[in-house]
Amino acid sequence: MTHHLISGGAGFIGANLATSLLKDGHRVLAIDDLSRGRIETIHHLTNNPNFDFRQADCADRDALDAAIGEAEGITDVWHMAANSDIPAGIADPRIDLHQTFMTTFAILEVMKAREIPNLHFASSSAIYGDFGETMIHEDIGPLLPISNYGAMKLASEAQIRAAVEAFLSRADIFRFPNVIGVPATHGVILDFVHKLRNTPEELQVLGNGTQQKAYLHVDDLVRAMRHIAEIPGRYQLFNIGPTDDGVTVSMIAETVRDVASPSASIIFGEESRGWVGDVPRFRYSVDRLINTGWEPSLSSQEAVQRAVAEIVAQEMGR
Amino acid sequence: MTHHLISGGAGFIGANLATSLLKDGHRVLAIDDLSRGRIETIHHLTNNPNFDFRQADCADRDALDAAIGEAEGITDVWHMAANSDIPAGIADPRIDLHQTFMTTFAILEVMKAREIPNLHFASSSAIYGDFGETMIHEDIGPLLPISNYGAMKLASEAQIRAAVEAFLSRADIFRFPNVIGVPATHGVILDFVHKLRNTPEELQVLGNGTQQKAYLHVDDLVRAMRHIAEIPGRYQLFNIGPTDDGVTVSMIAETVRDVASPSASIIFGEESRGWVGDVPRFRYSVDRLINTGWEPSLSSQEAVQRAVAEIVAQEMGR
Repeated sequence: MTHHLISGGAGFIGANLATSLLKDGHRVLAIDDLSRGRIETIHHLTNNPNFDFRQADCADRDALDAAIGEAEGITDVWHMAANSDIPAGIADPRIDLHQTFMTTFAILEVMKAREIPNLHFASSSAIYGDFGETMIHEDIGPLLPISNYGAMKLASEAQIRAAVEAFLSRADIFRFPNVIGVPATHGVILDFVHKLRNTPEELQVLGNGTQQKAYLHVDDLVRAMRHIAEIPGRYQLFNIGPTDDGVTVSMIAETVRDVASPSASIIFGEESRGWVGDVPRFRYSVDRLINTGWEPSLSSQEAVQRAVAEIVAQEMGR
Repeated sequence: MTHHLISGGAGFIGANLATSLLKDGHRVLAIDDLSRGRIETIHHLTNNPNFDFRQADCADRDALDAAIGEAEGITDVWHMAANSDIPAGIADPRIDLHQTFMTTFAILEVMKAREIPNLHFASSSAIYGDFGETMIHEDIGPLLPISNYGAMKLASEAQIRAAVEAFLSRADIFRFPNVIGVPATHGVILDFVHKLRNTPEELQVLGNGTQQKAYLHVDDLVRAMRHIAEIPGRYQLFNIGPTDDGVTVSMIAETVRDVASPSASIIFGEESRGWVGDVPRFRYSVDRLINTGWEPSLSSQEAVQRAVAEIVAQEMGR
């Protein structure tokens, strides 16, 4: 049994990770400011004696340190806290500065002071920017993020790399594409479900629907992160994703429509990008991870199908 | 005539850049918090009617905006403000957070609000990390900075890249190695001169002297930056440096000794790195820049020889 701190522990990924770690008998301290995470996501864990939750802003070093308080023997921090609203971060760069980067910065300061050795970081495919048809592997360059979210994830990676040089024993960097599943708090599937709940006869889609992306189900993501955390090494950089090239926004729109409101018509926009900072197409190599013996259980298409069913059930109670 | 803002305008590179722009008849507004820059570096400019200096912390958006005040028609920002003490930044990460990254962040906010179109940014070879014998070109990856300084320069590049997507008309990223010349405010040559002034019979060197790096004279650097600023483009990424593989710390120590205190003995340490975050060896491709028609006037060795003469004259009055 080891003791794990999860920042963003009431968020979509953090809550799934906490459930997984607890299932294997580990202790978990989840910290979340509840600005985006919701306490409901971890209600099923609160009776577990190995689980603790504390509300704090992880970007505030002193508040974070106070939240950890007397918790003992923490060896691993899983840093999942971040802004998850990319367009909001483009409108106001202070959002990603605070929620995506300063969380990393303050967590590193607390880890140094408390001598916590291991960091596992939720980075993003957004650090790469737009490589068009080029297959994106971990060592590609130059890194040209086109959103403040991607910029502040890259800034976080850089600060973590310097910390490995100075004091951390180990850091894993997980770069992942869109992750889907429940409890959904944001994302394209949830948006579509909400739109169809409001206007069941029509689904308006930002962009022309041809944007194609890889989607990973959160169950596969958690399995991959925990797999990587077991690989010996000092600084590990892994793309995590399915092995396919992804699915289009129009496929997602159709899947949601078919489940949530079969008679609705789908109306597309004209832009190839949904918003500034949206990468229209994207080929993502997970060969490095596959070569370590991990493989996804679901393709992008299967992940979308499962997540749509889960999210419609969550939002519409069916 | 165009109107240029230089952040860190009283620093080593900023003051040389201001002199160059003014010589060509441009207007310059230099802003510096004088924490590292010194007002003496720009005394020779203060009678020039095209030159203005204002003291402000460029990491403070409101203070920076107030310092710009009613200045009109600024089209270009040259962002040279940064921490220049790498070991200090490793001991306290908040130094590079504030001086190296938050200056970039606040400058971008002010440029957006004031609709200033063009940014020229002093990045660093420190963003690359330790590639050993591999030739470092601009598109290499992964980027693994080993100092907080390098991390916050990379964070700055990332934030600038996202700003180009959102609102900037143009950004140039200059990645340069060690830059030397006068007015020297920091760096290995100045350290050696100070040591020999204090103990003329002996020069203690951090590390074993085999660290090899490329050195660029500030005159060549300013010429390169202004050359790149004339190349059409939206986002330009250039290594700037000499075309050689650099010189060793022991060559620099000997050159300083020969000029400043010829009878001194040189005593080396045992580590191959001078400090945590110091990259021991380093091969730097400037092919992209050479292919645009620029070339350095001095090799690393010639740059060191000239800078040693200049810095000894500055510090010892001879």
